[in-house]
Amino acid sequence: MINLRKKYKSFGGWTEFYEHQSATTGTPMNFSIFRPNHSKPLPVLYWLSGLTCTDENFMQKAGAQRMLSELGMILVAPDTSPRHCQIPGEDEVYHFGAGAGFYVNATQDPWRKSYQMYQYVSEELPALIKDNFPVDPLRQSIFGHSMGGHGAMVVGLRNPSAYRSISAFAPICAPSQCSWGEYAYSRYLGEDREAWLAYDTCALIDAGCEKKPLLVDQGSDDEFLESGQLQTSRLGEVCKERNYDIRLRMQEGYDHSYYFVASFLEEHLRFHQRYLEA
Amino acid sequence: MINLRKKYKSFGGWTEFYEHQSATTGTPMNFSIFRPNHSKPLPVLYWLSGLTCTDENFMQKAGAQRMLSELGMILVAPDTSPRHCQIPGEDEVYHFGAGAGFYVNATQDPWRKSYQMYQYVSEELPALIKDNFPVDPLRQSIFGHSMGGHGAMVVGLRNPSAYRSISAFAPICAPSQCSWGEYAYSRYLGEDREAWLAYDTCALIDAGCEKKPLLVDQGSDDEFLESGQLQTSRLGEVCKERNYDIRLRMQEGYDHSYYFVASFLEEHLRFHQRYLEA
Repeated sequence: MINLRKKYKSFGGWTEFYEHQSATTGTPMNFSIFRPNHSKPLPVLYWLSGLTCTDENFMQKAGAQRMLSELGMILVAPDTSPRHCQIPGEDEVYHFGAGAGFYVNATQDPWRKSYQMYQYVSEELPALIKDNFPVDPLRQSIFGHSMGGHGAMVVGLRNPSAYRSISAFAPICAPSQCSWGEYAYSRYLGEDREAWLAYDTCALIDAGCEKKPLLVDQGSDDEFLESGQLQTSRLGEVCKERNYDIRLRMQEGYDHSYYFVASFLEEHLRFHQRYLEA
Repeated sequence: MINLRKKYKSFGGWTEFYEHQSATTGTPMNFSIFRPNHSKPLPVLYWLSGLTCTDENFMQKAGAQRMLSELGMILVAPDTSPRHCQIPGEDEVYHFGAGAGFYVNATQDPWRKSYQMYQYVSEELPALIKDNFPVDPLRQSIFGHSMGGHGAMVVGLRNPSAYRSISAFAPICAPSQCSWGEYAYSRYLGEDREAWLAYDTCALIDAGCEKKPLLVDQGSDDEFLESGQLQTSRLGEVCKERNYDIRLRMQEGYDHSYYFVASFLEEHLRFHQRYLEA
């Protein structure tokens, strides 16, 4: 069962915010959805957000509704973690715990009970959407921003039959090789770094995963690129080594913000549409 | 002198946030500006925001930058009041004081010292913009949302030679006839209701002001329409009586939010462009 929390008419369709009790996380979870005003089943795009975001940021700031309405695509944006789990440290730092689930299935106490975001995003949420909205579940794609760009690439590459295309804005490309990822993965997944590689895009590509259409945009003035959190050049190198022909674009002068995301969003939506309409 | 606080590349141009010391309010004032990547002087649109907003809401939520970049228009969005004036009651209610300057020149103590938003918006800010940015000051238009829709209509109608066109989303059409306006105007302007009429769109039109091109969009499911704060039908009536051919559109199912504003923003920008490019 899903409960409608808020609903706004947008570009002829509806931007809606729901809550439901998740069997995967054992907690209430929020997600937002944009539904164009169409009567036939539509393709669905999943958007995964970055650190500190909720299910609301994308709907408020990306300016996506116009194109989604025009192209006839449903978009679903889940929250970035379970919340209010009463776990000590859950709200201590912005890059771990609440708002920072990293789209992994935690194996370590006390996180493993609720922090199962990989399963939530790749299994429970699509099933819930299929049961409650007029989507065509055979036409799904996935994209995201920063931590959510990482999530989109990992979920998309590990489930190649479920998603037709993948894209990312300023993604964390190699979480096992940056301080955000090391901090989170050592706590969610434990000290065995082998276990981290299932949630590391560069490692998945290096291991020879199936190649799906993949578009990545990265701003050249992104502070997190400079500080080494994103490892974009590593992604380019491993794709070259593995003959994976991704579209990796450096966008001159852009930063890590939603102003950057909004600037290139239409191109990402058109990229996905090409595969969703095929 | 203006100080750049934040700058984001957006759609090839720049979304910037500035602070300056205002001679009009005697306080620091914030404004935001979007500058497309053009070399020639551009027309400039002023956006006035609604209750509780700052200079940031529009830039984050309206999705304007794409069209502004395409049409070649600069947009300036000031804050909605002076702030931190140390006036008792300044931050007590959302519809008065900080975030709620109502674009009037207050005549009553203690507000009159700083709450001079009419003069700030119609005189100081345009002069500041002209001195610091590549605008063509002969091509100005003005628009806004809710309290800012009221402000845009009042500033535009009272300065017909300064602005080529006016538009508003869900404006407060007759502030002297609604509880928000009565609360604010009795405190900013005193108990003499005659003095209120200089800041009341319906009264200005009824008094036979010069007619400028005016577009107004109003959502039919707007809670503030239902509660009588907006008085949209009164605007329609007075325009009919005075043979003022405005474009007043009721938008079925839309509410008072930025989701509504974003949905019709492109049409407002194209409306203004017609007069700015003439």
